[in-house]
Amino acid sequence: MTPAPPAAHDAVDVIRTKRDRGELSDGQIDWVLDAYTRGDVADEQMSALAMAVLLNGMTRREVARWTAAMIATGERLDFSSLSRPTADKHSTGGVGDKTTLPLAPLVAACGVAVPQLSGRGLGHTGGTLDKLESVPGWRASLSTQEVLRQLEDVGAVVCAAGTGLAPADAKLYALRDVTGTVESIPLIASSIMSKKIAEGTGALVLDVKVGSGAFMKTADDARELARTMVDLGTDAGVRTVALLTDMSTPLGRTAGNALEVRESVEVLAGGGPADVVELTLALAREMLAAAGRDGVDPADRLADGSAMDAWRRMIAAQGGDPDAPLPAARHAHDVSAEVDGVVTRLDAHAVGVAAWRLGAGRARQGEAVQAGAGVELHVGLGDAVRAGQRLLTLHTDTPGRVGRALEALAGQVTVGPAPGPGTALRPPLVLDRIG
Amino acid sequence: MTPAPPAAHDAVDVIRTKRDRGELSDGQIDWVLDAYTRGDVADEQMSALAMAVLLNGMTRREVARWTAAMIATGERLDFSSLSRPTADKHSTGGVGDKTTLPLAPLVAACGVAVPQLSGRGLGHTGGTLDKLESVPGWRASLSTQEVLRQLEDVGAVVCAAGTGLAPADAKLYALRDVTGTVESIPLIASSIMSKKIAEGTGALVLDVKVGSGAFMKTADDARELARTMVDLGTDAGVRTVALLTDMSTPLGRTAGNALEVRESVEVLAGGGPADVVELTLALAREMLAAAGRDGVDPADRLADGSAMDAWRRMIAAQGGDPDAPLPAARHAHDVSAEVDGVVTRLDAHAVGVAAWRLGAGRARQGEAVQAGAGVELHVGLGDAVRAGQRLLTLHTDTPGRVGRALEALAGQVTVGPAPGPGTALRPPLVLDRIG
Repeated sequence: MTPAPPAAHDAVDVIRTKRDRGELSDGQIDWVLDAYTRGDVADEQMSALAMAVLLNGMTRREVARWTAAMIATGERLDFSSLSRPTADKHSTGGVGDKTTLPLAPLVAACGVAVPQLSGRGLGHTGGTLDKLESVPGWRASLSTQEVLRQLEDVGAVVCAAGTGLAPADAKLYALRDVTGTVESIPLIASSIMSKKIAEGTGALVLDVKVGSGAFMKTADDARELARTMVDLGTDAGVRTVALLTDMSTPLGRTAGNALEVRESVEVLAGGGPADVVELTLALAREMLAAAGRDGVDPADRLADGSAMDAWRRMIAAQGGDPDAPLPAARHAHDVSAEVDGVVTRLDAHAVGVAAWRLGAGRARQGEAVQAGAGVELHVGLGDAVRAGQRLLTLHTDTPGRVGRALEALAGQVTVGPAPGPGTALRPPLVLDRIG
Repeated sequence: MTPAPPAAHDAVDVIRTKRDRGELSDGQIDWVLDAYTRGDVADEQMSALAMAVLLNGMTRREVARWTAAMIATGERLDFSSLSRPTADKHSTGGVGDKTTLPLAPLVAACGVAVPQLSGRGLGHTGGTLDKLESVPGWRASLSTQEVLRQLEDVGAVVCAAGTGLAPADAKLYALRDVTGTVESIPLIASSIMSKKIAEGTGALVLDVKVGSGAFMKTADDARELARTMVDLGTDAGVRTVALLTDMSTPLGRTAGNALEVRESVEVLAGGGPADVVELTLALAREMLAAAGRDGVDPADRLADGSAMDAWRRMIAAQGGDPDAPLPAARHAHDVSAEVDGVVTRLDAHAVGVAAWRLGAGRARQGEAVQAGAGVELHVGLGDAVRAGQRLLTLHTDTPGRVGRALEALAGQVTVGPAPGPGTALRPPLVLDRIG
């Protein structure tokens, strides 16, 4: 059956409704997103509407319909033909957040397929595809048939989301980026969830980051975003749960593409930084539970090497050589402690901006990134250090960028007297669970 | 001295400042309006900013700077070479509001020059230029030299504002029209006042309409708009005063181009509807006082025929023939009372929309209007009528439009029992004075 053509609306009426704090009707939402995607609603009209949404908000019903309308502008994938359940994870973005890399093969090794269709990184948080592209030969683009076959054969796919999923979102996100309308919880939540629901995963675990290195600076905002996304997923039939996790200091000891792949392989080999291991296992357990496989302990799959095997198959299936040496930057610049003491500050945002400026990230869509660039931390928050001991190393192919990276770090990585007993320098990694 | 180039700003930073309820700096305002006029700030960025201004407001300082920055994008006229003072009047627009037509020659006849540079009408309120263009031969476009010569020789000019005055405003107004960002008092006030200040008048009287047929539906909104505009004019060195006047029912007995010219000539001949005469004299007295000529009584100039003489010279100076018959529409449709009673409702907005639909106004910029189309009222609010007596006549060249005009009038022109004693059907014409 052909769907009825959407009723004609007037863009100015839709804008005025939200401007005057009214609730948009289903018909208005369906029409405006479809017409915007087709070009019948102009960019200047959609940006005015986005600003009105940012300032006046949306009800739960409006966000759900907005998300559904964005999905309806494109195609939906269907994993029901697979022999095993599917679960995906989405992080709102953080500094050094490489958990997708060990997590996808780990969950696959536990018998749940992980279809992770990702976007590119922009700004100070790195993109998963950029990280994996530092593996020689690995390619991000797969056809839908290749995705399905790899999910069946290997159990995990990390690849570029095609332009067919929620095309309204791609267009709207680019518009919001240049019109000061990014920071809206309904628009952020619908942007993320439209792609994840269209992707067709059966279960979804959201890692909502909180702190200086995250998009959400306060736990209240992060909790509201998490609640909005969990509701959207649940309403759309996706078993969805969210963890609120700390992003006041970087996750692990590296921020940068090849640097983070190296650290991820260490985790898969049974080592790696304790916080990365802790978060990877916490997310894996949530994904397995949401997919109905609570009986499996992912820690066993790390220990017995099966997660590493899945990683190697996942990389090889997309043309990558898991045994090839990872690229390294041509220049390294060490920063050392000036006094004895403990690391009292190690700010996530500063480290993220430094890695970005060194070449690990891009300022504009389409820019190339440096595979070897980034920040390597030799210490963590609260560690005791001696004067002269290395705190961190900056890696880059373009040494002219070191100065600007050091500016970002000024005053943000400090060594001082140890705080009194009972004063925690770092909050718990997992702050809350919403689901 | 060449002004320093404006400092570079970022459009997203400017938008975010207003979005987050901050106050825009002088530098931000100057930059964003200049860059928008040059095309360096995109329409989608300006519409997001306009929506943020609409929802979060502007301080008095911001509106003043915004207005000055719009003026700075274009040229300014200078009437200081004239032998007499100048005064202009601006109406926020109402149904049947033809007061500019008798007012300009009347004030000129009192020794004050009236430079009225006007725009075209859009929507249900008519445009002064459209009205005058129904006079055979009259042309709206004059060069600046012609304006100056006519002000010296005749004392009154009503003509099209060139594109050189506040070009940012023309661009911004067209954008606001399609993005639901018209209804913002700071943006309305700065739009009107940027053109009037750039026009170079020494004194300005604002006729701020209130009621169904006006842009401002409540006295509170009208008063805020009036206060904002009076402050802007005063701060820019223009002696400015505002009258708040009723627009719940049409002004006079006609709405339409040639119909309103005919009624205006009746006023200049010493007749015409009492409300049009009252408002014309009230505005004339304010203009004369603001121009420092309080000693002159404009009622004398109506009575002695010198205002009519000035009208004839004003029309002739722009190619018009003041003795030529005015165009009439080819079709007339009468509406009569069904019962005996008094006119208890005669809604300005309904009459305005009816005249517009009959062909007196345009829906899009650049459309032609019908010179003879409009609504002619045979009764006023509170008049006693008998069943079968004509209430109004619809005039149009295109009889297919009569049905839609009657729809607009349905329930909006009513005859019923007289209200109890002491119940006024119409509020006072002049509601307040701000200055």
